[in-house]
Amino acid sequence: MKIPSLLLVAGAGAMTVAGLCWAAGPTPSDASPIYGVRIPAGYRDWTLVAPAQEAAPLDELRAVVGNRKALKAYRIGARAFPDGTVLVKLAWKHTPSPDFPPASIPGAATTVQVMIKDSRRYAATGGWGFGRFVDGRPVDQAQHETCFACHAARVKDRDYVFTRYAP
Amino acid sequence: MKIPSLLLVAGAGAMTVAGLCWAAGPTPSDASPIYGVRIPAGYRDWTLVAPAQEAAPLDELRAVVGNRKALKAYRIGARAFPDGTVLVKLAWKHTPSPDFPPASIPGAATTVQVMIKDSRRYAATGGWGFGRFVDGRPVDQAQHETCFACHAARVKDRDYVFTRYAP
Repeated sequence: MKIPSLLLVAGAGAMTVAGLCWAAGPTPSDASPIYGVRIPAGYRDWTLVAPAQEAAPLDELRAVVGNRKALKAYRIGARAFPDGTVLVKLAWKHTPSPDFPPASIPGAATTVQVMIKDSRRYAATGGWGFGRFVDGRPVDQAQHETCFACHAARVKDRDYVFTRYAP
Repeated sequence: MKIPSLLLVAGAGAMTVAGLCWAAGPTPSDASPIYGVRIPAGYRDWTLVAPAQEAAPLDELRAVVGNRKALKAYRIGARAFPDGTVLVKLAWKHTPSPDFPPASIPGAATTVQVMIKDSRRYAATGGWGFGRFVDGRPVDQAQHETCFACHAARVKDRDYVFTRYAP
């Protein structure tokens, strides 16, 4: 089948538009803007680092899990995490338990947030790449621009990682 | 070496006393009273089922992890958990984050609580054996007498398990 040359031109144009969208904001990719971080396969089976609660307005329960490199570094008390470390924070709305009044439990899932250590690729951001996902899709570039600034301002001395291991 | 008969009698007496202590309250064993449940090896690497928060007076952050049988049953939506299921609840004091004011994080560890499914051994308690541990040691019999009554009163229709899987 012969493809009309007009269609080829239109196709090239669409690719360019998609590229611009990727750089400018929400992206059709499954990778985060700026960092190109994806949700890692199998993370839901990883080992718990620690749970947390975030007060209003977010009002969430959270749990950070890590891959083997992450857990090993936590457990030996490493000063920095090695390349290949991946941390994933799961978050849900903070919801009263219908079964036991003093308890609150996870409601709807809100975000999945990922940190990946690659000291070469992410040399400009402390060695970390960041990804923030809602319903499996990365949020926009503006939100990703806030990740490193906050980590650098608050926990630079812990290799930019907020979460401590809960024994 | 010949063992004096008096020593043998004394030894038997000590065993009897130990047996009585075991039945009456705190036990020198690492197994829970009533159920004989121990803290399972390697549980700290198991997969997260869900975090939770418990309000005052306990004021705790918690996380339930499960072994493979537990997670498989949760993920297929099984009506009941199979024999061999083990669930472990870790708990810590609910402590303000020193790094990020809206967050609360795990403080000192408080209890580790274990449920083990063995429908024969624990037929009288819905198929579940319970263990509650502080600093790695089981708490007394009186506390263990409350486990099944509460689970039976509140979540009998979910195979006596409070915690739902947080996706």
